[in-house]
Amino acid sequence: MNKTGNGRGRRPGSPGTREAILAVARRRFLADGYGPVTMRSIAAEAGVDAALISYFFGSKKGLFGAVLGLVANPPEVLADALPGDPATLPERVLHAMVSAWDDPERGGPLLLMVRAAVQDPDLTRLVREILEREMISRIADHLGGPDATARAGAFGTQLAGLIFARYVLAVEPVASMTPDELIRYHAPGLRAAVQRPPRRMR
Amino acid sequence: MNKTGNGRGRRPGSPGTREAILAVARRRFLADGYGPVTMRSIAAEAGVDAALISYFFGSKKGLFGAVLGLVANPPEVLADALPGDPATLPERVLHAMVSAWDDPERGGPLLLMVRAAVQDPDLTRLVREILEREMISRIADHLGGPDATARAGAFGTQLAGLIFARYVLAVEPVASMTPDELIRYHAPGLRAAVQRPPRRMR
Repeated sequence: MNKTGNGRGRRPGSPGTREAILAVARRRFLADGYGPVTMRSIAAEAGVDAALISYFFGSKKGLFGAVLGLVANPPEVLADALPGDPATLPERVLHAMVSAWDDPERGGPLLLMVRAAVQDPDLTRLVREILEREMISRIADHLGGPDATARAGAFGTQLAGLIFARYVLAVEPVASMTPDELIRYHAPGLRAAVQRPPRRMR
Repeated sequence: MNKTGNGRGRRPGSPGTREAILAVARRRFLADGYGPVTMRSIAAEAGVDAALISYFFGSKKGLFGAVLGLVANPPEVLADALPGDPATLPERVLHAMVSAWDDPERGGPLLLMVRAAVQDPDLTRLVREILEREMISRIADHLGGPDATARAGAFGTQLAGLIFARYVLAVEPVASMTPDELIRYHAPGLRAAVQRPPRRMR
């Protein structure tokens, strides 16, 4: 156990180190948005080695998830659901998403984040950046092919709609559907979204 | 008919009283959002008794609905777009919706409504009721057949996603797409949503 009172010398075991990093990260993400904040600058401000942030949070994405108090980190939930048979991609993503959001422990903080993002312009920007960089880009990389970003955007738009309709507004029949019903009625739209549209329409 | 020139003395029958209230309310809601605006302050600015607002509009919620009804009434926009060739239903609805929301005059108040609905539980309930009764039910009636409400719900969920992604969060690539691009990439998902799903899925 390191006993120095100097923050620079903090070790993983020092009391409050993790909390100190989180406090700095929270303030910095909210002030500057997700993109401009570096792990190094957070480490410097918290008076710890940058390696400690990786030690505690794995990555900048992990740190963000921790900052928001999330038990479920949406980019990680998505990343876990992407690999697999392309034919059942919608079912995997819907299952992962609904499992996280339907769980009060994990869904509560997620809903808080969405409500906050609608009200606070700084958080709107932050959530927008996460959606673009960590979710739509990842889906686009996974899909590949022409127009991958546009198709990933359409896919992500439908997921956003599900969150808005089921959790934020609680609109029926979406709010009361079982997970199986949700998947049954929403997978076809997601499947169509990721397919390449015909060159000419209408 | 009350003839006093003093606004304070206006009566329900006075020409322009209702319109005067609406004009003040519209400006105030757009400037300050739903929460901070009080009936009393609108009455004072319009030069009427606060009781007149209740007389005309019932409540702050009713006043807000009347303000929105002036500029763009989503159920009417939808009702106008439903009739026609079933094969191009998604294109008609997307075109009508994007035309309303992309127009600053009409889209501004609509966005205000969505932001307010996320913040205020009374407005959440109001918007939920409108979506269920005036929009999803109408789509279900239009679609007909088994599971019409579930399929209409999936259709409406995608429209909600478009509003959330393009207008509330302004997420790329959805935020900057032209109306034609939006229709091209989002119509296939809507088309799949209204088709009857296979009896068994996974």
